[in-house]
Amino acid sequence: VSSRASVAELGEFGLIARLAPTLAWPVSPGLAPGLKLGIGDDAAVWAPTPATWAIITTDALIENVHFRLATTSWYDLGWKSLAVNLSDAAAMGAQPRYAVVSLGVPGDVAVAAIEEFGRGLADVGARYGTALIGGDTVAAPFTTISVTVVGETVPAAPGEPPPLLRRDAGRVGDAVAVTGHLGASAGGLRLLEAAGAAASGGAAATATPLPHAGRAAASAVSADADAAVLRAAHLRPTPRVSAAGLLVAQGVRCGMDLSDGLLGDAQRLADASDVGVVLEAARVPVAPALARLFPDDALALALGGGEDYELLCAGPDGVLAAAGAALAAHGEPALTVVGRLVAPPAAGPRVQVVDAGGVPLAVEGGYVHFRG
Amino acid sequence: VSSRASVAELGEFGLIARLAPTLAWPVSPGLAPGLKLGIGDDAAVWAPTPATWAIITTDALIENVHFRLATTSWYDLGWKSLAVNLSDAAAMGAQPRYAVVSLGVPGDVAVAAIEEFGRGLADVGARYGTALIGGDTVAAPFTTISVTVVGETVPAAPGEPPPLLRRDAGRVGDAVAVTGHLGASAGGLRLLEAAGAAASGGAAATATPLPHAGRAAASAVSADADAAVLRAAHLRPTPRVSAAGLLVAQGVRCGMDLSDGLLGDAQRLADASDVGVVLEAARVPVAPALARLFPDDALALALGGGEDYELLCAGPDGVLAAAGAALAAHGEPALTVVGRLVAPPAAGPRVQVVDAGGVPLAVEGGYVHFRG
Repeated sequence: VSSRASVAELGEFGLIARLAPTLAWPVSPGLAPGLKLGIGDDAAVWAPTPATWAIITTDALIENVHFRLATTSWYDLGWKSLAVNLSDAAAMGAQPRYAVVSLGVPGDVAVAAIEEFGRGLADVGARYGTALIGGDTVAAPFTTISVTVVGETVPAAPGEPPPLLRRDAGRVGDAVAVTGHLGASAGGLRLLEAAGAAASGGAAATATPLPHAGRAAASAVSADADAAVLRAAHLRPTPRVSAAGLLVAQGVRCGMDLSDGLLGDAQRLADASDVGVVLEAARVPVAPALARLFPDDALALALGGGEDYELLCAGPDGVLAAAGAALAAHGEPALTVVGRLVAPPAAGPRVQVVDAGGVPLAVEGGYVHFRG
Repeated sequence: VSSRASVAELGEFGLIARLAPTLAWPVSPGLAPGLKLGIGDDAAVWAPTPATWAIITTDALIENVHFRLATTSWYDLGWKSLAVNLSDAAAMGAQPRYAVVSLGVPGDVAVAAIEEFGRGLADVGARYGTALIGGDTVAAPFTTISVTVVGETVPAAPGEPPPLLRRDAGRVGDAVAVTGHLGASAGGLRLLEAAGAAASGGAAATATPLPHAGRAAASAVSADADAAVLRAAHLRPTPRVSAAGLLVAQGVRCGMDLSDGLLGDAQRLADASDVGVVLEAARVPVAPALARLFPDDALALALGGGEDYELLCAGPDGVLAAAGAALAAHGEPALTVVGRLVAPPAAGPRVQVVDAGGVPLAVEGGYVHFRG
């Protein structure tokens, strides 16, 4: 893409890759001797001390791009703004410690709303051991939020560098696994968008697929409970801070968080590690509430939907088995093997979805098309 | 102000103060044992090691609130976005080390513009020893930028905590001083706004005061040079990183950067240190180019205009004299004593401007009204 192209043509991920060399050039002449990892992973890493390294990550949320105030409470907005950054810290295998927030809001927003936002930030911070220690509040035509989290790695054995979960540490032959269940957040977003459109009387209300209503076994009460689970997964995600710590302690060294959907994030892991990824469709742990409410789309949402904030990792079978046992022993979500790292293909996509017999499936927008 | 009030009624500084207890509450139960300084100064401080502390600061810039793309190049925008954060790091007496940037832009912005933005960031980072190590680029209806800088303090003598420049370290009797000259940025903004309004044919072009044109000694060439100096002061500010290091090394312990104007920032220092401030109008180092181009408004812009990013500090006379000598010896801008910290007044404003005889002057919006 030429420099005369627009940002939209390049796309968000293309833009970061395009900017990295420009931003990174002063690093090379020894500007940052303590730097261990720059742009390109879930967080950057430097070494204030040899034994414990520091990580930093930042994420922006923009009104009507990443959230709508019609379907998101200020409390949930505060929660999610910090939670997605805590997830990035966890995705490096680090413990998040401190956070700062930049908040731009229109002048007519009520102070009570900002206080609710602050409570959401503070509550998720307290739950995951992260203190809000600074910020900047400015006027803006609509709400914009940027949160930065600093964390620290788990010290290693004396003389060894602290372990990290890196995107580029995958090796051919590694098993690929995910924590928890996938697709719940995308299902929750679908419910919220449908409700928002219905409330505003828009035509989109009928265009958005609504929950499956014809299953004899599902009572209205349990459908409501399932819907609540999906909405909560979208509005108040759970960063896998403790689970990531256990993965690292068990020797897992390749990992990232699932913010953009399993297919897209597996692609990024494959690019960073220079490998291919084979995912077995039947092994993907679809969120049960999603499978009940949207049976036809559940797999597509689990493969292609984003914002699950579960962990995607890779490692030798024995290491992942031990890690899974550690998660189970600590009451953390299950670790499910969903595929394997393979030699990078000479051409074509690096991520392939196969059926139980290993036969490749055609996938479009997360939707799996069974061939022949 | 009640919670039902709007953000506009409370104002930016009121909002931060209002939010601080909400954000800070989880810190108290021992959540952040290494925290040395939370919300309320130019940056937050924690102690990854006993000898060297870390600081973090964040600042947001919003299109049409903090800058206009009609009068700001993308390069300058990148420069300034990082420079204002480097200034906050310097204002703690710390060396900035690493920066991350969140950038929200409309999809129709050219990739070349973002590359220019990146070059501005990288250049100012390289000049002041700060590496860009991470970021997030997102779609937004207009340009929003948030930069976070992490730095480290200068190690102290063994066994002593690292020294900081804190807002709350001022003591009654301390002299008050500023680095460099004031008002240039506000003068530059006035020139840019006038040019922007003239270019767009708006009525504001005539309403905005234009440079003084009637001085016999000032050739058109030198007026152009003065205008260029003022515009550069606004668009490409110089963070006082080295100067701050010298102040700290000389024992200065109270300081902050001048981002919102001498009067407003002196007020914040007075609040934090629980003192009063007396400023002597005739001692304020008005930028020479400003005094030539806007002789009638120069003092008002130096007192009330913002974004100079010079340092405001306080300390015993001998300490400030030694610090001033150190700045001069290193080719840094002059340190000018402009007043003194006094006992806080029982009522009325904490900051008072006086004439050379000590007689209080009435000040409104930076404009000094001579009484009687």
